[in-house]
Amino acid sequence: MKGNVIVGQSGGPTSAINSSLAGVYRTAIDRGAPKVYGMLHGIQGLLDEKYVDLSEHIRNDLDVELLKRTPAAYLGSCRYKLPEIHEDPEVYEKIFAILEKLQIESFIYIGGNDSMDTIKKLSDYAIVRGYETKFIGVPKTIDNDLMGTDHCPGFGSAAKYIATTFSELERDCHVYNVKAVTIVEVMGRNAGWLTAASSLARLNGGEGPALIYLCEVPFDPEKFLQDVQEQLKIWDSVLVAVSEGVHDAQGRYLSEQTQSGATDNFGHSYIAGAAGVLEQLVRDRIGCKVRSIELNLMQRSAAHIASATDIRESQMLGRKACQCALDGKSGRMAAIRRISDEPYRIELTDVPVSESANAEKTVPAEWI
Amino acid sequence: MKGNVIVGQSGGPTSAINSSLAGVYRTAIDRGAPKVYGMLHGIQGLLDEKYVDLSEHIRNDLDVELLKRTPAAYLGSCRYKLPEIHEDPEVYEKIFAILEKLQIESFIYIGGNDSMDTIKKLSDYAIVRGYETKFIGVPKTIDNDLMGTDHCPGFGSAAKYIATTFSELERDCHVYNVKAVTIVEVMGRNAGWLTAASSLARLNGGEGPALIYLCEVPFDPEKFLQDVQEQLKIWDSVLVAVSEGVHDAQGRYLSEQTQSGATDNFGHSYIAGAAGVLEQLVRDRIGCKVRSIELNLMQRSAAHIASATDIRESQMLGRKACQCALDGKSGRMAAIRRISDEPYRIELTDVPVSESANAEKTVPAEWI
Repeated sequence: MKGNVIVGQSGGPTSAINSSLAGVYRTAIDRGAPKVYGMLHGIQGLLDEKYVDLSEHIRNDLDVELLKRTPAAYLGSCRYKLPEIHEDPEVYEKIFAILEKLQIESFIYIGGNDSMDTIKKLSDYAIVRGYETKFIGVPKTIDNDLMGTDHCPGFGSAAKYIATTFSELERDCHVYNVKAVTIVEVMGRNAGWLTAASSLARLNGGEGPALIYLCEVPFDPEKFLQDVQEQLKIWDSVLVAVSEGVHDAQGRYLSEQTQSGATDNFGHSYIAGAAGVLEQLVRDRIGCKVRSIELNLMQRSAAHIASATDIRESQMLGRKACQCALDGKSGRMAAIRRISDEPYRIELTDVPVSESANAEKTVPAEWI
Repeated sequence: MKGNVIVGQSGGPTSAINSSLAGVYRTAIDRGAPKVYGMLHGIQGLLDEKYVDLSEHIRNDLDVELLKRTPAAYLGSCRYKLPEIHEDPEVYEKIFAILEKLQIESFIYIGGNDSMDTIKKLSDYAIVRGYETKFIGVPKTIDNDLMGTDHCPGFGSAAKYIATTFSELERDCHVYNVKAVTIVEVMGRNAGWLTAASSLARLNGGEGPALIYLCEVPFDPEKFLQDVQEQLKIWDSVLVAVSEGVHDAQGRYLSEQTQSGATDNFGHSYIAGAAGVLEQLVRDRIGCKVRSIELNLMQRSAAHIASATDIRESQMLGRKACQCALDGKSGRMAAIRRISDEPYRIELTDVPVSESANAEKTVPAEWI
């Protein structure tokens, strides 16, 4: 069978996810796929038969290069988790009917844990029901929490933004000679890789953040206040990095612990992130100048400072995934294997998608 | 008299203020100043006799180039407004005693409105009391609100960061096909130049922010809600730019208007910026997905995306100020005069510092 290729994007956008899309497209064209479709808003859009013929949108080499450098998700994204096959076989029947109609040989999905779960379920269903379509995943997440790959496309660019921004904030924070605390919240609900990347600011001639709190370690507000007090004895300005997902030993997020009673004058509860809660805590208990900063969407969309290595690897993984599918593999994820640290060398491989689906790779305790 | 030069930095840091410092230093050395001192933390540090010999810190051309590219304020800054001369002549006597001791011929101060007020007062005092020290200001403010100069060093870099970031956020915000509002708060208490710079995102192939609210125009929350509702009819995702200083016709800031009753469970009032208040308003009254983003310190310190023109002009203005002082001028500010828009051409000039001290240049009503 010489069939068509369909590709989708899922989960939170990154600076590099479109580079993977460009890679899938290029290899599909190189390998002679008659049609390369793009799902609009991932599998959710496909269920509504929303897709485009990518060759109408990517018309030349310049388009490919621009796509590689554009943040977010060109095809749109979704947050949709497929039900278990036995729970709702109709959804699967509908998806495979659409894939049959479009004569899809290769189904490539770019995303994180949930997306790999989608690949696993569709691949399992195809095997059980005798469909020939092959399903391959391309890893993508700024959180870097996917198992089975040395690191994740999107992480490098976000880490570069974070390291650079901390380096710049550090200089800004030391301008006045008054005691001051600056608390910067970094994305990561369950994995602290991005928050840990703040320490790379030290490579730029500074001290980097004085205190770093990863979500892998239970967070104790009293210990935090002690740590800040200690640092304030040494420095005028204390820069703190904190994962958005810091929580206590029982797993309750910081904002749930201390902010649950906060309401505005309409009686609505106020939603604050970890840094906002800690800002208020420092103001109340230490009383010095304090500011909280959320790196917010900028950390995942700052393509102007994307890592060239990340963009290149993202494209290569898109190419690898498409190759795997066209070579007849299914239920696998394209992945990076590290060959050496110095010099930095990797090779591409593919791993069973079950390694990544619904698992999370956190920062090892011995590294913290 | 062949005397020494002293230079200080004041007010909020920028990506370009150190380039002006590099310019002052270079011209002082070129013109044969025996010593070039740097005040630590501006005039406040000088009052405590805190200063450094800059030649011990800037040792070669590479140091100058690195200084030009480093954000924040190398010498530290202060927020200190000199009293009126008749209110506290002792402060002036103390400053001039220190200047005499250091044999200062030229006093250069890099800053905004308050810093130009400092230059004006010191220059007036010198004239009245017969001191020979010359006082010249170098404009600096990301807010771009200084009178007497076409635009302000620091503004161009901040505007470039803001335009780029809005362009990236716009793409990020259109990833999901759900109704969503993203409100981005930009610095500027009294002048909306930086918020207006968000519209430059349109140069990058997008729509830019759908709604822009400058602090020059009285802000009406009900009108804002209407505007957002209108835009939500057209687009899934609505991107809003808002000046931190938006206020009602009576001058009350947005956070004072609607958030004054908000308290946390310790009974402390919650401090929220304009975007945070609007986020809550959209959540309560429209009920769609909504997010607020503060560009915070990043917009003034993101030297990695500084404007080359801004860095160059900042250095040139530092050089110009030092030349003016060494040529015997005093009570003036180095300034940019625009010669043509297309092609962009400027010339350097100097204007009476009284034009800038305590005045603010806001966005003209006919431009809004």
